[in-house]
Amino acid sequence: MIDLYAWDTTNGRRPIIMLEETGTPYRIIPINIHDGSSRTPEFLKISPAGKIPCMVDPDGPGNQPFHMNESAAMLMYLGEKTGQFLGGDARNRWEVTRWVFFHATNVAITFSALNRAAVLEPRCRDLLDAMNNHLVDNEYFAGEYSIADMVPISRFAKFKFAAIDLDEYPHIVRWRDQLIARPAIRHAMEVPIKPAQAAE
Amino acid sequence: MIDLYAWDTTNGRRPIIMLEETGTPYRIIPINIHDGSSRTPEFLKISPAGKIPCMVDPDGPGNQPFHMNESAAMLMYLGEKTGQFLGGDARNRWEVTRWVFFHATNVAITFSALNRAAVLEPRCRDLLDAMNNHLVDNEYFAGEYSIADMVPISRFAKFKFAAIDLDEYPHIVRWRDQLIARPAIRHAMEVPIKPAQAAE
Repeated sequence: MIDLYAWDTTNGRRPIIMLEETGTPYRIIPINIHDGSSRTPEFLKISPAGKIPCMVDPDGPGNQPFHMNESAAMLMYLGEKTGQFLGGDARNRWEVTRWVFFHATNVAITFSALNRAAVLEPRCRDLLDAMNNHLVDNEYFAGEYSIADMVPISRFAKFKFAAIDLDEYPHIVRWRDQLIARPAIRHAMEVPIKPAQAAE
Repeated sequence: MIDLYAWDTTNGRRPIIMLEETGTPYRIIPINIHDGSSRTPEFLKISPAGKIPCMVDPDGPGNQPFHMNESAAMLMYLGEKTGQFLGGDARNRWEVTRWVFFHATNVAITFSALNRAAVLEPRCRDLLDAMNNHLVDNEYFAGEYSIADMVPISRFAKFKFAAIDLDEYPHIVRWRDQLIARPAIRHAMEVPIKPAQAAE
């Protein structure tokens, strides 16, 4: 049983999607990022910089417990642990890897900043163009369905930005609608992370 | 001979460091990111969103030519190709992977934005604290010297921000000084990328 420390953020949903897709048993331990829970000495030992999500796998490499953080790296770890969603052959595996970095670096961070700085809109549109153009001829980002899709979907499932209407990018919309129809993703996006009694 | 398309940026130096450390033959093809060279249809076929660096390996998986982009993913690719700097065992490999994502996502992007938005200074200092505290008990980020060090060094070798003096973080300074003393890194940071006759 993997212990997943998370809160209801875009990055917090990523490993849940992968855990659901691979059928890996897990339980969620909510870490409120607003009340100081992510800044305790105990939590900082699990996660540098006090970031969620992170997880503890009791059956890690060498059959020892293993702490893992960085949401995209966690998907790669779970992919190797379960032998799923990392790509079908060596070439495809590197396509998966580069798209995972594309989404985890440029897309995630640039969009996060967009709501604070309108100057980033042209750069976000460049990234949307690159994604939309790629998806004209490709059903998924890297061959078959993989973690290269799971990394970005947690953002695009709930895409909402004042400056940009996603409907302008029809191939991204087609890709998004296809993914959010998957039971594992639908469940992962809705499974409660905050404790029922939490007050923000 | 690997063809590396690059310009003189922090990310552009990353694969050069890895090529130098692994002794992999390469040649640099400068792509001026300021004059439209990175926006031509030909270049967009090699690199989505027109980003540098990217590379073409004539001897890719399946003995076929292979295009690779995303600087951090390129280091992972070169690591597997040469069998170097990915970590000594399975546990260490995941430490390398999560630190690579830590640097490629949070650190790189947050610092890039700092010079444009002073509001990010506290977040940058959180990241510096996490790095500095980790390096108190660790010579490198993930066990032995690895791509988890090569990803960030291209930024920290030339760290210069009005709001932050790196000397406040002595363990990062120790780590940086140790790395920039390596011949491969020193050479990689100085090897010309722009054509000799280039005018900006």
